[in-house]
Amino acid sequence: MASNTHADYPPELSAEEQNFIFAELKDWSIAHGLAVRPAPSFVQQSQDPSGVLATTAPVTIFPSLFPRKCFEDGLSIQKAYNELYSAIARDEQWLQGIVEELVDVDDFVAKLWRTHLAVKKEGYVQDLSLGLFRSDYMVHEDPSQTNSTPGLKQVEFNTIASSFGGLSSQVSALHRYLFSLGAYPSSTSSLIKADALRQSQSTSRLANGLAAGHRAYGESKTKLPLCVLFVVQDPERNVFDQRHLEYALLEENDVRSFRLSFGESLALTKLDGDRNLIYTPPHSPSTSYEVTTIYYRAGYSPDDYVKEEDWEARLHLEKSRAIKCPSVLTQLAGCKKVQQVLATPHSPHLKRFLPDEETASQLLKTFAPIYPLDKSDAGQEAKKLATEPSSAARYVLKPQREGGGNNIYRKAIPPFLQKLPETQWPAYILMEMIEPPPLKNAIIRSGVVERGGVICELGVYGVCLWRGGSGEGDKGEVLENFEAGYLLRTKGDQSEEGGVAAGFGAVDSCCLVD
Amino acid sequence: MASNTHADYPPELSAEEQNFIFAELKDWSIAHGLAVRPAPSFVQQSQDPSGVLATTAPVTIFPSLFPRKCFEDGLSIQKAYNELYSAIARDEQWLQGIVEELVDVDDFVAKLWRTHLAVKKEGYVQDLSLGLFRSDYMVHEDPSQTNSTPGLKQVEFNTIASSFGGLSSQVSALHRYLFSLGAYPSSTSSLIKADALRQSQSTSRLANGLAAGHRAYGESKTKLPLCVLFVVQDPERNVFDQRHLEYALLEENDVRSFRLSFGESLALTKLDGDRNLIYTPPHSPSTSYEVTTIYYRAGYSPDDYVKEEDWEARLHLEKSRAIKCPSVLTQLAGCKKVQQVLATPHSPHLKRFLPDEETASQLLKTFAPIYPLDKSDAGQEAKKLATEPSSAARYVLKPQREGGGNNIYRKAIPPFLQKLPETQWPAYILMEMIEPPPLKNAIIRSGVVERGGVICELGVYGVCLWRGGSGEGDKGEVLENFEAGYLLRTKGDQSEEGGVAAGFGAVDSCCLVD
Repeated sequence: MASNTHADYPPELSAEEQNFIFAELKDWSIAHGLAVRPAPSFVQQSQDPSGVLATTAPVTIFPSLFPRKCFEDGLSIQKAYNELYSAIARDEQWLQGIVEELVDVDDFVAKLWRTHLAVKKEGYVQDLSLGLFRSDYMVHEDPSQTNSTPGLKQVEFNTIASSFGGLSSQVSALHRYLFSLGAYPSSTSSLIKADALRQSQSTSRLANGLAAGHRAYGESKTKLPLCVLFVVQDPERNVFDQRHLEYALLEENDVRSFRLSFGESLALTKLDGDRNLIYTPPHSPSTSYEVTTIYYRAGYSPDDYVKEEDWEARLHLEKSRAIKCPSVLTQLAGCKKVQQVLATPHSPHLKRFLPDEETASQLLKTFAPIYPLDKSDAGQEAKKLATEPSSAARYVLKPQREGGGNNIYRKAIPPFLQKLPETQWPAYILMEMIEPPPLKNAIIRSGVVERGGVICELGVYGVCLWRGGSGEGDKGEVLENFEAGYLLRTKGDQSEEGGVAAGFGAVDSCCLVD
Repeated sequence: MASNTHADYPPELSAEEQNFIFAELKDWSIAHGLAVRPAPSFVQQSQDPSGVLATTAPVTIFPSLFPRKCFEDGLSIQKAYNELYSAIARDEQWLQGIVEELVDVDDFVAKLWRTHLAVKKEGYVQDLSLGLFRSDYMVHEDPSQTNSTPGLKQVEFNTIASSFGGLSSQVSALHRYLFSLGAYPSSTSSLIKADALRQSQSTSRLANGLAAGHRAYGESKTKLPLCVLFVVQDPERNVFDQRHLEYALLEENDVRSFRLSFGESLALTKLDGDRNLIYTPPHSPSTSYEVTTIYYRAGYSPDDYVKEEDWEARLHLEKSRAIKCPSVLTQLAGCKKVQQVLATPHSPHLKRFLPDEETASQLLKTFAPIYPLDKSDAGQEAKKLATEPSSAARYVLKPQREGGGNNIYRKAIPPFLQKLPETQWPAYILMEMIEPPPLKNAIIRSGVVERGGVICELGVYGVCLWRGGSGEGDKGEVLENFEAGYLLRTKGDQSEEGGVAAGFGAVDSCCLVD
């Protein structure tokens, strides 16, 4: 898919076409739980104090065009990424080196590390770790070359709370439904066709991942019934995304789960003498459960730890025998500093974790050059690139922390750094901008249709369950490793931030083109 | 289930129990399309001009107790009811006698009849008729007897636009989900159990009914693709109920359908020389469809015919070769006058349509005594009963027309009749009140929980497809006849009106008790 080959996609819709698609889309989405709770700017809490209103999730009207080769590459290398990040999470010593560079400038990383050390002091009692990962990419076309072959470049690798797996399955089903109705203009028929639309299996496969952890935990040590805990934010607008996983976990895997917030977990769970994690639901205090797996959909951002007790809660959960999805070390493996040291040109690190050269070289192709802003040679080079407006224009400055919202783009980088004390620069990494092909689409959000240039981000989910790595010499072992469906997230190209929950983008699906 | 046997059902919920159930219920319902568009009193149109907001449909928290024998009776006699009403619809001469008694007092019935006559004049070109019926019952316990055996008494028989088939399947799934979570207090475990909860198959079976009509229509006469038309109100708050049928029609039966209002049908459909009904979707004017089946979800009330053109539209559709669900004659067969003459003590009519005595006697048991308010002997008796406050207290006065909202209850009857000119009395029938056992439940509506005494109405859906009856001597033939799931509709016993869409009740499911 070279640039501008499909410049007329998607076509303009007549008023009648748009009315029809809109009516179908807004009803189908609610009928199938492709929904979010409305933003406070749309419905104030005083109007709906019990929170029963819902609205269509922000979605694209058309499936976005995506190069078939890139899509297949992304799915096929997910198992290698799962292997890589589980190996990193098992290498405490290496991670320590990373963390030590950050503790002085990133209080969040420091607190996570201290949580790990506190558990280690008492001794970990669970040797299994679960990852529900998502590797995010954009299609990159080298702007300096005409007719360059598009390739995938990684934006980031998420090791905690990878979202939208539940809604992604639904949006690809929505686009297939609209296609089956003939709702798309006939001029799209050479592009939107059955073998071009890809149904994401993310809901079912991510639930299978949680069920794999649950089963691997083994029998109840306490004779209590077993359950999975979802640790969530409260309130959570994106609740249906999570609920679809819960329902698939129950219906397809017969595994019971409960939701609770960090704030509730100290009161509602306790550790017995063997550090089994016992959850007592407030609605049914006479029936307690032994927790097999803790699935964090909160805790990825400092904002999730409002009070000191929230850190206590995290420590309390981490100490337990329950399998953590993810463990603190796995969460730390996802910090941008790790991505940066892997992607720093001529880095020796990738080989450490992926000795197989062919696999490593496949991953390497998806790295965009990333530089530290420290005292290393690469760091010195980066400082020059970042402070000079003409070169900075090809870069993005990102904080080490998880969760978007704080990136500094292109020409805004030099003045930003000028105001920032240089001691704090190492909290950021400098990354070459990925240059995606120009695309268009229409997004529906809160009932309003916006049309224009868009940028698409492909997320590929992966499930990995592994054992060990905490003891010396023992490198552990991967027990489950599979690709788990995909997400396409699309945002207007005016904004340079992603993340539908934050109100900046939409859930999309792939229409593959050769 | 004798009165008061289960007076402690459902139990009071602790705050924690109610919070848990409420959180599960409000998320599950949106995730599974058990939803309605919010009432204008909840969300004003100006706040959500494109109508993307939705809310949990009004539902009961618990499945209501229902006598197993009554439930099974209701389902098993549905085929006999389908047969009865299709026979009535095929007997134009008999219906004419009924209608002639009403034309002077009921303008709506008169207009429907004139529509039939206008089509007849040109000659009907479609010999097939489809009915998606719903027979509504309450459990009756004779208040004059202690320990009376509860039996089903028919409230009404709906021959047009029988609603809630789509949501009923979902609410029984919701109650099963809450049960599978253990969300109901353990004190309910002797009642709420797997073999007591009944999953309604109404969505799937009603869609099968529409598909049966579609198939029976045969091949396209015009070589155009075939479709089903849903004639709907616009706006429609209960749209998801209808959408679930559309989705099941497409997914389970591969039948395409479109929605349009009466107001749109003159502009968007035309009759060709053979009176094939051709629909041209406004969003795709180059592709027309030949309509096999018209499914009316509007047109049952005078309010649906705002302008004279709406009657023209009905006539236009009726003239066509498409199968009508229902035809005008079938709609007229559902008027309360028909129910009244069948249920008038010692009526000869039932035998006319159901010669088999055993079948007829089964149906007869479900009739509550109904009287005309006319010059017949039964009518004279009725006038005495209705004008005397002490006897009127056991009766309800109902207009002949479809659709609730205008019933006069018990002691309100004498003063109502006093103000009504006696010439208009024949527009009403007098029906003995059904005395249901006292039940309790909790209803969630617009996020508010109301708890208290309730009355439950069981609706049993039926599908019937038949041929003929318009020619002399030809009694026609039933081609398909099946029971199609159930609806339990529950309202507070303070209000004496039904109909969730009108804001008076909730969708419920059956917890069968012996």
